[in-house]
Amino acid sequence: MSTDSANNRDRSASTRERLLAAAVEAFATSGFAGTTTRDIASRAGMSPAAVYVHHATKEDLLFEISRRGHQSAVEIIEGASRRSQDPVVRVRTMVEEFSRWHAVNSRVGRIVQYEFDALTPEHRAEIAEYRRAIEALMREALEAGVEAGVMTVSDTKGTSLALLSLSIDLVRWYHPGGSTTPDDIAALHGELAVRMVGATA
Amino acid sequence: MSTDSANNRDRSASTRERLLAAAVEAFATSGFAGTTTRDIASRAGMSPAAVYVHHATKEDLLFEISRRGHQSAVEIIEGASRRSQDPVVRVRTMVEEFSRWHAVNSRVGRIVQYEFDALTPEHRAEIAEYRRAIEALMREALEAGVEAGVMTVSDTKGTSLALLSLSIDLVRWYHPGGSTTPDDIAALHGELAVRMVGATA
Repeated sequence: MSTDSANNRDRSASTRERLLAAAVEAFATSGFAGTTTRDIASRAGMSPAAVYVHHATKEDLLFEISRRGHQSAVEIIEGASRRSQDPVVRVRTMVEEFSRWHAVNSRVGRIVQYEFDALTPEHRAEIAEYRRAIEALMREALEAGVEAGVMTVSDTKGTSLALLSLSIDLVRWYHPGGSTTPDDIAALHGELAVRMVGATA
Repeated sequence: MSTDSANNRDRSASTRERLLAAAVEAFATSGFAGTTTRDIASRAGMSPAAVYVHHATKEDLLFEISRRGHQSAVEIIEGASRRSQDPVVRVRTMVEEFSRWHAVNSRVGRIVQYEFDALTPEHRAEIAEYRRAIEALMREALEAGVEAGVMTVSDTKGTSLALLSLSIDLVRWYHPGGSTTPDDIAALHGELAVRMVGATA
C-alpha cells in the first residue's frame, strides 16, 4: 500500500464504487432507460468524460450491479444450505436467509429484476447462470428431503420456484424502515417453507 | 349501430384498442422510458399527430394498460372468492385463479409491475387502490378460515402477501408455450396454498 501504483489502484477502485453507487441511485429514481451517463456522472461528482475513462457505459454499470447482487444472493443461499444436515432445517434456513437478503437489498433487487431485459444478450446469459445456480441449490435441497423421507413434494422444480418467489417478490413491496423488519419476514417465510415442503419430521 | 355517431364511436373505440395493443408491444420490447409516442404510433399504423388526437400520451396508455390489468385481476380473485363457502376451498380457488391469470397474462403483468414507478402520483394512487382490494380479499379469506377453526395462520397479513407472491412473481419467469401450462401452475400453487394456511380440515 505504500507504492504509487497501489495508491492509484485504491483510488481507481473507490472511483468505481462511487460510480456504482451513483448508478444505483439513478436507476432507482429514473429507471435504466430514463438515466443518462451524464446523470450518473453528476451524481458521482464526475465529468461524463471521466466516466468513459473508467470504461463505464450505463449498461456496464447495470451489469456490475446485477452481477454483484446475484453473486451475493448465491453466496447467501449456498452458505445457508451448508448450515445443517437436517433437510427440513436446511430448506427453512435457505428461505429465511434468501428472504432476509431481499428485504435488506430491496432497492438493488428491484433494479436487478426490473431492468434484466436492458442487459446485452451476453450479460443476460451470464446472469441467467447465477439464477440457474440458485434454482439448482433449492431443488437439490428438496430432493434430499424427499429422498430422506422427511418431505412430501409432488413437483420439486415448481415448488422450489415457488419457495424462491416468496423472497424475490418482496422487493416489489418491501421498503426498509417500516414496522415489518427483515427478521420478521425471514421468520414467517421460513415457517411457510416448512409447510410448503410437507415436512413430516 | 346504424347511425353515423355509433359508427364513429365504434371506430374510435377500435383505434383506442389498436393503440393499447401497440403500446403493450412497444413497452414489452423497449420498456416505458425506452419507448416514444412515435414508436407506438408506428406500431399502430398511425401518425404521431393522430395519437395526440386520441388524447393518448405514453403515460395515459401505460395507466390504461395497468388499470385494465388490475381491474381484471380484482374481478378474477373476487369471483374465485365467491365460488365456495368452504374457507379452505375458497383460498385454494383464489390462488389457483390468480396464478392462472398471471400465467396467461404474463407479458402485461411484467409491464404493469416493472413500470409502476413510471405512472404519475395520481395514477399510482389509483392502482394502489386495486392492490389494496386484492390484499384485503385474501386477508379476509384467511381470517374466515382461522375464525372457522380450519386454518392455522400466525400472521394473516404476511401470509396473504406470500400467497399473492406465488402468483405475481411468476410473470418474471413464465412465458406461454413451454411445457408448463397455466393449469399446471394453478394446480401446484393451489396445493401449496392449502399447506401454507395450515389447513386442518
